[in-house]
Amino acid sequence: MISKLPSESLTIMTELVLPNDTNVFGNLMGGRLMYWMDIAAALSAQKHCNAPVVTASVDNISFENPIKLGNVVHIEAKITRSFNTSMEIHLKVWGEDLTQQYKYKSNEAYYTFVALDPNRKPRPVPSVAPETPDEKKLFDGALRRRQLRLILGGKMHPDEAAELKALFVKD
Amino acid sequence: MISKLPSESLTIMTELVLPNDTNVFGNLMGGRLMYWMDIAAALSAQKHCNAPVVTASVDNISFENPIKLGNVVHIEAKITRSFNTSMEIHLKVWGEDLTQQYKYKSNEAYYTFVALDPNRKPRPVPSVAPETPDEKKLFDGALRRRQLRLILGGKMHPDEAAELKALFVKD
Amino acid sequence: MISKLPSESLTIMTELVLPNDTNVFGNLMGGRLMYWMDIAAALSAQKHCNAPVVTASVDNISFENPIKLGNVVHIEAKITRSFNTSMEIHLKVWGEDLTQQYKYKSNEAYYTFVALDPNRKPRPVPSVAPETPDEKKLFDGALRRRQLRLILGGKMHPDEAAELKALFVKD
Amino acid sequence: MISKLPSESLTIMTELVLPNDTNVFGNLMGGRLMYWMDIAAALSAQKHCNAPVVTASVDNISFENPIKLGNVVHIEAKITRSFNTSMEIHLKVWGEDLTQQYKYKSNEAYYTFVALDPNRKPRPVPSVAPETPDEKKLFDGALRRRQLRLILGGKMHPDEAAELKALFVKD
Amino acid sequence: MISKLPSESLTIMTELVLPNDTNVFGNLMGGRLMYWMDIAAALSAQKHCNAPVVTASVDNISFENPIKLGNVVHIEAKITRSFNTSMEIHLKVWGEDLTQQYKYKSNEAYYTFVALDPNRKPRPVPSVAPETPDEKKLFDGALRRRQLRLILGGKMHPDEAAELKALFVKD
Amino acid sequence: MISKLPSESLTIMTELVLPNDTNVFGNLMGGRLMYWMDIAAALSAQKHCNAPVVTASVDNISFENPIKLGNVVHIEAKITRSFNTSMEIHLKVWGEDLTQQYKYKSNEAYYTFVALDPNRKPRPVPSVAPETPDEKKLFDGALRRRQLRLILGGKMHPDEAAELKALFVKD
Repeated sequence: MISKLPSESLTIMTELVLPNDTNVFGNLMGGRLMYWMDIAAALSAQKHCNAPVVTASVDNISFENPIKLGNVVHIEAKITRSFNTSMEIHLKVWGEDLTQQYKYKSNEAYYTFVALDPNRKPRPVPSVAPETPDEKKLFDGALRRRQLRLILGGKMHPDEAAELKALFVKD
Repeated sequence: MISKLPSESLTIMTELVLPNDTNVFGNLMGGRLMYWMDIAAALSAQKHCNAPVVTASVDNISFENPIKLGNVVHIEAKITRSFNTSMEIHLKVWGEDLTQQYKYKSNEAYYTFVALDPNRKPRPVPSVAPETPDEKKLFDGALRRRQLRLILGGKMHPDEAAELKALFVKD
Repeated sequence: MISKLPSESLTIMTELVLPNDTNVFGNLMGGRLMYWMDIAAALSAQKHCNAPVVTASVDNISFENPIKLGNVVHIEAKITRSFNTSMEIHLKVWGEDLTQQYKYKSNEAYYTFVALDPNRKPRPVPSVAPETPDEKKLFDGALRRRQLRLILGGKMHPDEAAELKALFVKD
Repeated sequence: MISKLPSESLTIMTELVLPNDTNVFGNLMGGRLMYWMDIAAALSAQKHCNAPVVTASVDNISFENPIKLGNVVHIEAKITRSFNTSMEIHLKVWGEDLTQQYKYKSNEAYYTFVALDPNRKPRPVPSVAPETPDEKKLFDGALRRRQLRLILGGKMHPDEAAELKALFVKD
Repeated sequence: MISKLPSESLTIMTELVLPNDTNVFGNLMGGRLMYWMDIAAALSAQKHCNAPVVTASVDNISFENPIKLGNVVHIEAKITRSFNTSMEIHLKVWGEDLTQQYKYKSNEAYYTFVALDPNRKPRPVPSVAPETPDEKKLFDGALRRRQLRLILGGKMHPDEAAELKALFVKD
Repeated sequence: MISKLPSESLTIMTELVLPNDTNVFGNLMGGRLMYWMDIAAALSAQKHCNAPVVTASVDNISFENPIKLGNVVHIEAKITRSFNTSMEIHLKVWGEDLTQQYKYKSNEAYYTFVALDPNRKPRPVPSVAPETPDEKKLFDGALRRRQLRLILGGKMHPDEAAELKALFVKD
């Protein structure tokens, strides 16, 4: 199975914030945004593996700026690295006020997907060959984020997470 | 400002998985579930602080079992701890096949909300007084999860996260 | 077929009133509420009979207080009695303003469902064994409501409705 | 305030049953239908009174035939009678399979609406002048249905409901 | 295959403009209206041919007056002419402010549908027998509009469009 | 008022076809697609003029290939030319089956928008400075399409449409 470039999986989604997407402040609800991000990330993962995918996990998301009613949501999704049958997708999200010509960051996030075969069993996916410095940095960090995911999911002991441990222990 | 019990914020949400909520496998999409969880958690936070709230962050979520079309989604949300103007909400999510009488876990998650005053500035919220052993454990863990959130959000250095560091360094 | 307790069918649904659910006064539309009530009641009926169900009828509903945009809708559904292949579900609906800490009644209602077998033919359901005084009162009243339903549906002559007739004729 | 004809309030609504409107049998959910009926009836009431209206109550509805995915829903709504500030709307609902050229009855129903002034207080509405034999029959029956509504809502004692009592007591 | 009357395909749709259908001015979005028009026209085409249909094309639509939030949308759809396997549907759309008793034109449009057999191949449809002067005028114009459609779709050269050419060249 | 480049208005939208977007063949309904196209085009127009816009008209759209359930819809929108207060937006739409790695054209279309000032009156917009050969061709054709729009809308006589007439009359 050949490896593929991150750029081949790039998915750009643009959404308009409508009344039903907003809370009492007229700002986009976090849950609505996570719904759109899930679809953008799933499409990016499918572009990489050309197979159906299911959401396996979502990493910490911190919402920085509220996105207002009538503003635009920009979502960019691109694969960072694959691990046998799973793929980590990196998302960048901005809001934009087209009238004021003001663009602002909402959040950055990582979603993980698993590719499935016709019997709904996990199937291998192509590896990722990062090209740009940014893609390489995201590729390297993917290992650390995966360790954190496994620890938080109770599937790995902190002691085994060498990459992650190095962040806390300097000697 | 008096403290309040976690049980006062308990919110129970029940949703039916309809066709538009599902992927090509006929399973609930992760993003749709995160949307419902966001609303359940926001209502729980509002019960605690009696003020409007906005989603500040979402911790790692790992989806364990797919929830099928026509099945039921059960969401239970309850506050674990508050930090001045923010509240951490713990969610437990199950799927249920009412015909087969089969109930299965989907995931456990933590959402964080900030309470806002009429000028949309953060406002203080009541503290939390845990009662049961479970509530006390969640209350204690909230500090560690908050440190992890701050590190992942680039607002704290790993060295400062004493509680978290203890997980990695035994001496 | 053994009988089951009403409490086994208890279904709690919590919904947030969003802009698209409201009329020009910013209040929840009656039809939207009946839609949610139908789903809550169907889930309750399915819990009782562990089979797919379809809505057979809805009794008179009288809406008492408007539920506002941004408020919460609480729906509690529980079986009262079964009649061979049909089940009567009792619903209680409240609105709640979480900011003002004000909870108000919206309505009480009865939905009737029929359980279906895989060939879409009605199939028998377990009987109901009421426990509490409230459940017993609802169980007894179910007969009278069923007679009214049959008369209003043109399937019973008023003369045959002994229970109901007693309300109008004292001697 | 002059009286108006029922035909002036006639509202015809046509809807297509889409996947998200259906249950596991691929049939229209009762709650979805009640939502559409509420809107059709509200528009009919608004045509009569030329003021905003809110749903006050819904009479017994009995669903006769399931409406299938891809079929069409026909709703006809027309006022029967007004009572100072409230209006009773009569609805007739059919399903239709356009491919098989088969049209079938779903249900007949009565919704009651109240007209509101700009301060959200009930305001008087025009009276109804029935023309056809059918409209006159519906006009006459409206009094009996109103008594039943008041009794079921606990606002009238069965003894006072002369029209309704006559159905049960012959002398 | 016998011919059918345009009136047999008449479809009347009534929709209420809800918050999520509107832009920042509180007016119905053009795209939402085209969605409803597509369904009304598809139902009209299905009534004519009693077979499933798919949208083949939409002619120029010019929106004349904005339709406001809370106003009603009236759509009338009727077949004008059929061409072997395709049908042209004529739509008239009005808005109405029921409170102000003000009805205004939104647009007139032509949608074209193709009837499909069970193998998803185009299948012949009945011809149309116009009755009224209006129906006859629409029947005649259908040929000219079809030529324009074919030219705009690159499937006919302007020289071949005799009917259309006559509009530009007088001699 | 300075002129702007077409590329500054480029808007890329990606949507996933969900069950409720499809007809009985499991293909995307034309009306749903026109709804998405309207939003993509409106965002492109807003990027150009930095003011709120409303849909003025839509040119002929011919749907070439059905887009299937679970497939992806790609929409690219870019301004071609502006006329004082209105803007013509060119859209290209593809479907894509990510599993089969098959991308296919759905349609090409032109939407026209008008920019509004705070009093909802049309306001001038920047002119367009096309760069690439494609943009220049679209810029030139815009005049001819505008004439056709005005003729079809009854606002121009065919005799006045010099550009368009030339297509039919060669001398």
